[in-house]
Amino acid sequence: AMDGAPPPASPAGLSAYVAVSQLLGLTLLATTGAWLGRYRGGVAWHSPLQFNVHPLCMVLGMVFLQGDALLVYRVFRHEAKRSTKALHALLHGLALVIALVGIIAVFKSHRTKGIPDMYSLHSWCGMATFVLYLLQWLLGCGFFLLPGASFSLRGWYKPQHVFFGITLFILSIAACLLGITEMLLFNIRESYSLFVPEGVLANTLGVLLVAFGLVVCYVLTRDDWKRPPLAEELALSMDFKTLTEGESPGGGS
Amino acid sequence: AMDGAPPPASPAGLSAYVAVSQLLGLTLLATTGAWLGRYRGGVAWHSPLQFNVHPLCMVLGMVFLQGDALLVYRVFRHEAKRSTKALHALLHGLALVIALVGIIAVFKSHRTKGIPDMYSLHSWCGMATFVLYLLQWLLGCGFFLLPGASFSLRGWYKPQHVFFGITLFILSIAACLLGITEMLLFNIRESYSLFVPEGVLANTLGVLLVAFGLVVCYVLTRDDWKRPPLAEELALSMDFKTLTEGESPGGGS
Repeated sequence: AMDGAPPPASPAGLSAYVAVSQLLGLTLLATTGAWLGRYRGGVAWHSPLQFNVHPLCMVLGMVFLQGDALLVYRVFRHEAKRSTKALHALLHGLALVIALVGIIAVFKSHRTKGIPDMYSLHSWCGMATFVLYLLQWLLGCGFFLLPGASFSLRGWYKPQHVFFGITLFILSIAACLLGITEMLLFNIRESYSLFVPEGVLANTLGVLLVAFGLVVCYVLTRDDWKRPPLAEELALSMDFKTLTEGESPGGGS
Repeated sequence: AMDGAPPPASPAGLSAYVAVSQLLGLTLLATTGAWLGRYRGGVAWHSPLQFNVHPLCMVLGMVFLQGDALLVYRVFRHEAKRSTKALHALLHGLALVIALVGIIAVFKSHRTKGIPDMYSLHSWCGMATFVLYLLQWLLGCGFFLLPGASFSLRGWYKPQHVFFGITLFILSIAACLLGITEMLLFNIRESYSLFVPEGVLANTLGVLLVAFGLVVCYVLTRDDWKRPPLAEELALSMDFKTLTEGESPGGGS
């Protein structure tokens, strides 16, 4: 748009879906805060409330920020690939740091209260997801940000990166649902079946997490909403193809 | 292959992934059986064991059979579209009936024991998934099996059907994970954190469910493993295109 031409339009519908995803994302953060603040005494590090740092950080990092990191190629579809890529890596990196704080919080809280670690299905799914998410981030940086990887190697890795990226996002949401169920059965086991407000609120948080995941995955998987290659990227890819007479990876992502 | 020519080969790798998915599927059924048989007293309808019909039916119907119904277009890639479609609808129908039996079992068991229904996140997710799965099946039959729907209407609905089909399969697995966590926290709340065998076995069932879902979704989403249109389908689609000068939906699925 530096030449004064109007910026290219986004596909009809995409902006609406992205707006809905962000509304859902903010609502689920607010719902998490409301649950912890209203029914669980709030959040603090050096206190018996340290555990509550865990759900807050995991929802913020592993769901909201991870989801938004996945959406950047759709939202910033007419920006240069390199800056979009950097934003994608940065958001995932931020998500990883926040999730790490959340994981440290639960281990420290368990230590204080004398509760064993890593025995539940939630902990198995959650930890596996976090470790694979870190690995995926490292591989993504290695293949796509460092200059070393060849064009054809990137083309081979890209579909794997996309598939496992969406998989890890879905697994993160599943781990959150398991964590909600665990928290409710530990804290309000007797009254949960009486439809007490805390139970209904936490169930609603679960439904919001599923809805956020659904909208993000719908935006990501719609073929006609994929990022189109910019004119200069197409030219580059053509040049490369002519040079090597090999296959070029698609420009979309 | 009626003309004696060798049958067309499937893509390399596809058969191996399908074999792994079936091994995982049978293993997760066996693990469910082992859990219920060894630690939960077994399965019976008119008895206090009625509840145990629920997890068995849901894993068999909503996970194993639903997953296999999704795979038929990849597995029977060189059969006529019409018979593959019928098998797809039949397997989903069978899954629905078995899941319905599982749902009746838990409602009846709750009635006997005086436990309220539909208060937990597991029940919310599970029931929503079942109702939407039934709706998806009805819509699928209406659009693709009845002769009424036009070519272009089918072409419009197909991507929606595929997206929501995979979504419902993933939601079914998530609902199972929530159910496993609920059962463990109701039955072995005190000893779960001591890594008792029942807890480890049930966690392993959870991991197997995730692995089955992962392999099935990988097979479904790989572009080069999609069902190629048969020669006669392509010809038909061309004829139609010439006749209407409109767009034809892709032959794959």
